[in-house]
Amino acid sequence: MRIALYNPDGVAQFWIDGLHAVWPEAEVALWSPGSPAADFAIAWAPPQAFFDEQPHLQAVFNLGAGVDALMRLRIPPQTQVVRLEDAGMAVQMAEYVCHAVLRHFRGLDAYEADARAGRWRKQAPAVHGDFPVGVMGLGVLGTRVVRALQGFEFPINAWSRQPKALDGVRCFAGTEQLDAFLAASKVLVCLLPLTVDTQNILNQDTLSRLQPGGYVVNVARGAHLVDADLLALLDRGHLAGATLDVFRTEPLPSEHPFWRHPKIHITPHISARTLDAESLAQIITKLQALPQGLPVAGVVQRERGY
Amino acid sequence: MRIALYNPDGVAQFWIDGLHAVWPEAEVALWSPGSPAADFAIAWAPPQAFFDEQPHLQAVFNLGAGVDALMRLRIPPQTQVVRLEDAGMAVQMAEYVCHAVLRHFRGLDAYEADARAGRWRKQAPAVHGDFPVGVMGLGVLGTRVVRALQGFEFPINAWSRQPKALDGVRCFAGTEQLDAFLAASKVLVCLLPLTVDTQNILNQDTLSRLQPGGYVVNVARGAHLVDADLLALLDRGHLAGATLDVFRTEPLPSEHPFWRHPKIHITPHISARTLDAESLAQIITKLQALPQGLPVAGVVQRERGY
Repeated sequence: MRIALYNPDGVAQFWIDGLHAVWPEAEVALWSPGSPAADFAIAWAPPQAFFDEQPHLQAVFNLGAGVDALMRLRIPPQTQVVRLEDAGMAVQMAEYVCHAVLRHFRGLDAYEADARAGRWRKQAPAVHGDFPVGVMGLGVLGTRVVRALQGFEFPINAWSRQPKALDGVRCFAGTEQLDAFLAASKVLVCLLPLTVDTQNILNQDTLSRLQPGGYVVNVARGAHLVDADLLALLDRGHLAGATLDVFRTEPLPSEHPFWRHPKIHITPHISARTLDAESLAQIITKLQALPQGLPVAGVVQRERGY
Repeated sequence: MRIALYNPDGVAQFWIDGLHAVWPEAEVALWSPGSPAADFAIAWAPPQAFFDEQPHLQAVFNLGAGVDALMRLRIPPQTQVVRLEDAGMAVQMAEYVCHAVLRHFRGLDAYEADARAGRWRKQAPAVHGDFPVGVMGLGVLGTRVVRALQGFEFPINAWSRQPKALDGVRCFAGTEQLDAFLAASKVLVCLLPLTVDTQNILNQDTLSRLQPGGYVVNVARGAHLVDADLLALLDRGHLAGATLDVFRTEPLPSEHPFWRHPKIHITPHISARTLDAESLAQIITKLQALPQGLPVAGVVQRERGY
């Protein structure tokens, strides 16, 4: 068995050693143009040549939850594309989103400003009932985020492509229920896969349907959000703020207005890191199952794009 | 029935109307020196005269979870002292503590500084196993905080006066297990009642036993913490930071070094607000139960002080 690595997070030797521990005879190597073609690949954002030179790959394991970078490439039809599922990312996402939502709900930015100004001043407490949180995307990460927010007693709405049901959650589905979902939500959390259907989905039309004082948390992909539309709604006061971890261009260009906007918190795409040990363990399990024809979670349906 | 109010949060008329809705004939009034003596009282931090002039009070309902302000007074022996239990405070405490712990665990202060400096830089991800959180105090609030932190997969230690058992929590109890509890913890969350036994419990000796890079969250009472000892351990680098919501003197005096210390976040005693509607509902239920001799939660054991 030959396994090609491309751009693994962390140290390549960690992956080589980890795979050799299970398959001592496997050839595991970092791919570069001209490398021998492999049977399986573990990759993050490879170039087109990666697939052009390896037409017989049985499967490629994506080193992340979102496969939008792979879906932009021509991949041989028989190559299965497999996403990471959870692998330590779901709890990180719950942490990041809860932190952002709680900071806004509890007015902690204002308290920080007061502290810097030496001002002791209590704000009127906010009420959970006035802060319905709408979560877009109900995959492994979205579901975990919903559960974490429920623990803090926020009313939760959720929106997904296909109808789903979750205890205690008001579920909306499909294009026809998107407006109703937005109108029922004050805080919007985007955890959608990036596809042709979801790009630019956070725009002037949709964001203006959020309840007044709305707040946006984007932890999916930068291309979900129309940057100028967010800025316009913030400046107009319809939205109160945003926490953004992902951007159309990363690193975020230094001249971009998000860097210094007083109502926007940004982080450098760290909401849910790919953790080496968890990812390796998950991929080994799937690499053992696939050749036996056993079912494997996270196999991408190419026609829907995730 | 005569009910005396002292210093209720919010508008007094809210309390008067709410109690009259259940007991139309009750005399409900704000207390001031010389007021007629009442049968029951609902109060926050009254003066000694409040009890001296009302020797036949059957019960006083404390408008908060901590009764340390009442316990400093001479209260007639037959007067039952009843604390608020939860009443919307437990979820607030879980929110506040989780926000503070996640901010530290995820390095979000450093990311904020990077964003202000226009710097795109990922930190090495921290691991939950390296961040055992120790919770002091396992009452209604402490237990809720433990459950919320467990949802984010932190290893949890807990310390209480009497031995307790909680699923998935390493429980320590009593003076003899305090050192072991501290040595097992990196983040320390104080939710203890303030008594003669617990005042100054966060001091040079105890805080220096926390794991290196320790972090302190005090949401109980300012008198639990020896301010100078915290500052010394921060300056020496043994502790990485602190989030403080309570202080020995409130409002925190303007010259106090906590205001501007770069490793300390402060808020003006807002971690768990007394919510009018929830508090009123709870006190009404207890006011109905007490005269019938029914058991009531939150009755203070005077000899232990909470």
